[in-house]
Formats: sequence, C-alpha cells, structure tokens
Amino acid sequence: MPGEFTLIDRIKARAATRDDVALGIGDDAALLRVPAGQLLAVSTDTLVAGRHFPDDTDAADLGWKALAVNLSDLAAMGAQPAWCTLALTLPHADATWLDAFLDGFLELADAHGVALVGGDTTAGPLALTVTVHGFVPDGEALHRAGARVGDEVWVTGTLGDAAGGLLQWRARGLQSAKLRHRLDRPTPRVEAGVALRGLARAAIDVSDGLAADLGHVLVASGVGAELELGRLPTSVPMLEHFGNDAERWRLQLSGGDDYELCFVAPAANAFAIEQALAQCEVIATVVGRIVAGAGLSLRTPEGEAFDLPSAGFDHFGGHA
Amino acid sequence: MPGEFTLIDRIKARAATRDDVALGIGDDAALLRVPAGQLLAVSTDTLVAGRHFPDDTDAADLGWKALAVNLSDLAAMGAQPAWCTLALTLPHADATWLDAFLDGFLELADAHGVALVGGDTTAGPLALTVTVHGFVPDGEALHRAGARVGDEVWVTGTLGDAAGGLLQWRARGLQSAKLRHRLDRPTPRVEAGVALRGLARAAIDVSDGLAADLGHVLVASGVGAELELGRLPTSVPMLEHFGNDAERWRLQLSGGDDYELCFVAPAANAFAIEQALAQCEVIATVVGRIVAGAGLSLRTPEGEAFDLPSAGFDHFGGHA
Repeated sequence: MPGEFTLIDRIKARAATRDDVALGIGDDAALLRVPAGQLLAVSTDTLVAGRHFPDDTDAADLGWKALAVNLSDLAAMGAQPAWCTLALTLPHADATWLDAFLDGFLELADAHGVALVGGDTTAGPLALTVTVHGFVPDGEALHRAGARVGDEVWVTGTLGDAAGGLLQWRARGLQSAKLRHRLDRPTPRVEAGVALRGLARAAIDVSDGLAADLGHVLVASGVGAELELGRLPTSVPMLEHFGNDAERWRLQLSGGDDYELCFVAPAANAFAIEQALAQCEVIATVVGRIVAGAGLSLRTPEGEAFDLPSAGFDHFGGHA
Repeated sequence: MPGEFTLIDRIKARAATRDDVALGIGDDAALLRVPAGQLLAVSTDTLVAGRHFPDDTDAADLGWKALAVNLSDLAAMGAQPAWCTLALTLPHADATWLDAFLDGFLELADAHGVALVGGDTTAGPLALTVTVHGFVPDGEALHRAGARVGDEVWVTGTLGDAAGGLLQWRARGLQSAKLRHRLDRPTPRVEAGVALRGLARAAIDVSDGLAADLGHVLVASGVGAELELGRLPTSVPMLEHFGNDAERWRLQLSGGDDYELCFVAPAANAFAIEQALAQCEVIATVVGRIVAGAGLSLRTPEGEAFDLPSAGFDHFGGHA
C-alpha cells in the first residue's frame, strides 16, 4: 500500500502549473506571484463524509465537488481563480481511489486554469479541505453588504435540483440521474461572477439554500427582501419529480448544494446583466426585490404569504 | 447547542486583523493585499484526532499546535507569516471547547501578528486544517534543493523531546511534563527562518523526524549527508528520561513533531548564522555535513556506523 509520499508524488505528477507559480507542490510552501493592483481572494471549505455528500458518491464526482464548492465562493466575490491547495484525509492510502478523485478534481481545475500548488495527505475519516486563491481588482469585489432598497434579486441557473436529488437518494425510491448529477457535479459560476463586477451590488453563492444565503446578504446590507415563488427558476426534472408546489418551493428555498449565484442589482442594470451573462452562457432570473426592513417575505403566485419552516442549512443541523 | 453561524461569530469576534486585510471573516472569501516585490508563500496542514495528537490533548494546546505546524512550514521557507484560514471539523458544536481552542490558536497567531481571515466549521470527526499565508522577497526563499557538497547541516533547538513525550504518553508510565509540553506546544522557528535568508542554502522543518526530513533535502539537492550522533542537540529532560543512547538517537532521528528547522549552509557562513540566530534567541547546532552521493550515513561518537530501522514518519504508517 503506498504511503503519504507516494500519494503526494501521484498528485504532483498530475497537477498543472501556471506562470505565476514560482514553486508548486514539493517544498514546505508554495511560492506564488499575485499581480499588481489585484487583491488576493482566499476561501476554504471542507467536505466531510456522511455530512456533505451521499456515501455512494463516486470518487471523481467528489473530487469535482470539493473544488467546485470552493470556486463557487470565489465566484460570489467576482474573483478570478488561480491556485488551490488540497488537504485530503483518507481512511486508507488507496491509489486507485485517489486517481479517480484527481480525475474529477483536476478536470474542473483545468477548466478554470487553476493550479494545485500544495496540500497534505493524512490518514483518518474521509474529509477534504480545499483552499482556493483568486484575484479581483481592488474595489471591484462583490461583497454581501451592498444591497439597497429597490434593487432586484437575481439567481443564476435553476434552484432545488441538488436538494431534490439528495431527497430522492435518501428515500431510496425513484431517482432522477439529472437531479443527482446536479448534486454531485455542481457548476461554480466563475465566469458569471467575474462578469457581474460593476453590475451587481452584492452577491453570495447558494450553498445552504436561497433563503439562508440571501438572508446573509440582507443582514449584511441592513435590508429585507420579497421573493415571488412563481419566479424561482426551475428545471424540467425538478418539475417532473416534485410536482407539489409547496414541497418544491421548500427544496428550492432551503436545500443546499445548488452553488448558483444569488446577486442583487439596480433595476437599471438588468439589460446589461442579461447581456453580460449571455456571454458566459449563463441564464439568470429576477426572483424578487429588496425592501426596507429586515428578513425575507415569500409570496405564492396567488399573492399569498408562504411560510418556510426552517430557513437555513446549518452544518451542525443534520443535513447531509 | 450553538450552530455553525454562532461558532463563526465567536471566532470572528476574537480574530485580530491587519492593515493588509481588506475583508476578513464573514463574506464568501477574504480579500488580502500582498506587498509589491514579495512572493506569497502558502502552506496547508491537517491534524486528525487519533493520528497527530494524543486524545487527551488540551483544546488550547491543540489550537496552538494546529497553527504552529503550519507556521513551521513558512519558517522553513524563510517566509514572514501574515494570514491564516481555519477549517474546523468538530463532533459537536461545543462553544466551551471552541473558546479554549481559540485561546491557544490566537495566542500563537497574535505572537506572530497573524490574522485569521476565514474558515469553515463542519460537523464530523475531530480534524483541523489550517492554511497559512506569508511573504518572502522574490529570490530569497529557502528551498529544499540547494545543498552542496561540503556544506554544514544545522538544526535549531533540541531534537527528540516531542517523540519522547509521545512515547511516555503511550507507555502510560512516568511522564515528563517538559517533554509533553514540547509535543503539545511546538515552537515554530519563524524568526529564525527569516534570519536565515541569504545565509542558508536549503531548509526544511523537522515534522516527520530529522532523518526523513533531511532526506527530502538530500533528494531534492542530489547529495548525501553524514551526521554525527554525538552532536545531536539534546535537552536535559531528554537525557534524564532516555539515557540509552541508541533509543534516544532513534527518537531524535525518527520521531516527528519537533518542528525545529534543519538547514544547510556553507561553512563560511557559520559565524554570521550564529549571530543572526542569537538575535532571535535561537540556538542552532552543526550536526553533520553534506557529502557527494545519496542518502544519510550516521556515525556514533566512537566512529561506528549506526543503523536506523525505519527512516521516516509516514502519516499512513502508524505514528500518532
């Protein structure tokens, strides 16, 4: 069975590099060049087995997802990804598993020109911590604070698919491959985040559910919001498998793992936003507006108020 | 029981900041300013319960150690630490434990002027991944490659104490508080690493044992080394508790967790090195020299060859 240094050699042999990497994997630290005039954006996220992914998740999908959830954080800042590190805790030094994991991880890294520059492999219960680094010009980052009364609330892509896939997996009944794919291979909206610089006033990625994540924007900005449930962007498989409106809305509002962007922008920017996102082949939808006050109010297509039992994914709260 | 957001609030409330932190904890990513002319040094290390620390380790000591092992990597590059992120996986959202953990973590962070700028808290088996960021002027970093035939091999501080403390803890017999303290609260040689810029030709930190870590320098540099066991720097408690030479040498050569620096420098720099390290109140000792060839040869004070059964700590190999 290969030990730690063999695993690191396998990773090093496959990791791409970049001109701004002065020293990559294999020394005590990576040495990296940040371009002048750019801020360094740094984010870190952990995936733990039995908590953040179904236990039958394919190793390649897990590799993809471990990086995707981190790139999604950079996207939400409008930052351009550059480098990442990978801290991998594995029950066994399994080279076959690692190779498959790297297939998914490096496929996504390569797609975004991200170099894996360092990491650590340890033995223990399966867990993956990725730290991503990117750049954003000083003054152009998309913060959570910044939403103003009258602004529109947008989301990219469709909502609820990953939560629907998770619910089906748990029920062990009929499972949609398309919904499960959205759970296993989320698309970080990197190009959309960069395109929204100067157009959006605030942004966040939807990792814990739209209600909870938009809630962070509202608190940070000191405002409230009204959402129209009839405008939540919904995929065809989601409609097919979750025909009950209330159940579907709950999944779309409270389900984690969508990794779409939720952003807030002045109504006057709507056309420019549509154009900018079309360039990245990303659809975005206005789902509500920012109002004075605090908190989120939800309205059905019939104009009735809708109550959400639990408005927040909490990683100590019991979701997988 | 507090949830994730309460834990993050507790962390945020206590984390210090720095002028070069444009945005710290609480958004999707931290935004940081790297000074012009400096390379960014990045390193990441994970501590897993049952693997990297005794299960009775105090929470404050664990906080200290989680950061110390990472700062030690920056020290080995000659980098000046600036920022860190913390990914904390905890079995329970225990605020008392977290506060104690932060006591140790932030005590060391504050001592080195390091700002905690982001992180993640998740539920799962206890594990801690820290990513540290620092600066080193372009061209001045201490790499592993660079040792040349005739150079001297140095180590800071004393060797074997942490391994001695771990061995005593495992045997559940007489335990030296001083040795255990070296295991629980390693001193990252940050100032020494910076002081060695321009003086040392190669450096590494001793995390996996002197033989294994110096071995990495030898492989990277394409050279061999001869060590004189009689010159290994040894603490008084180590001598008192491990009077058998062969046993003590094995601990000093193969025991992990010392977090001293091992560095290689031309003999002509010896006086300047002594002076530079005296400024940081760090003792360093010449323990051998670089020779042509490959691998490590060990000699007793009587001039006899000494065999090391297993020259390497491997995190999949069974050490704690």
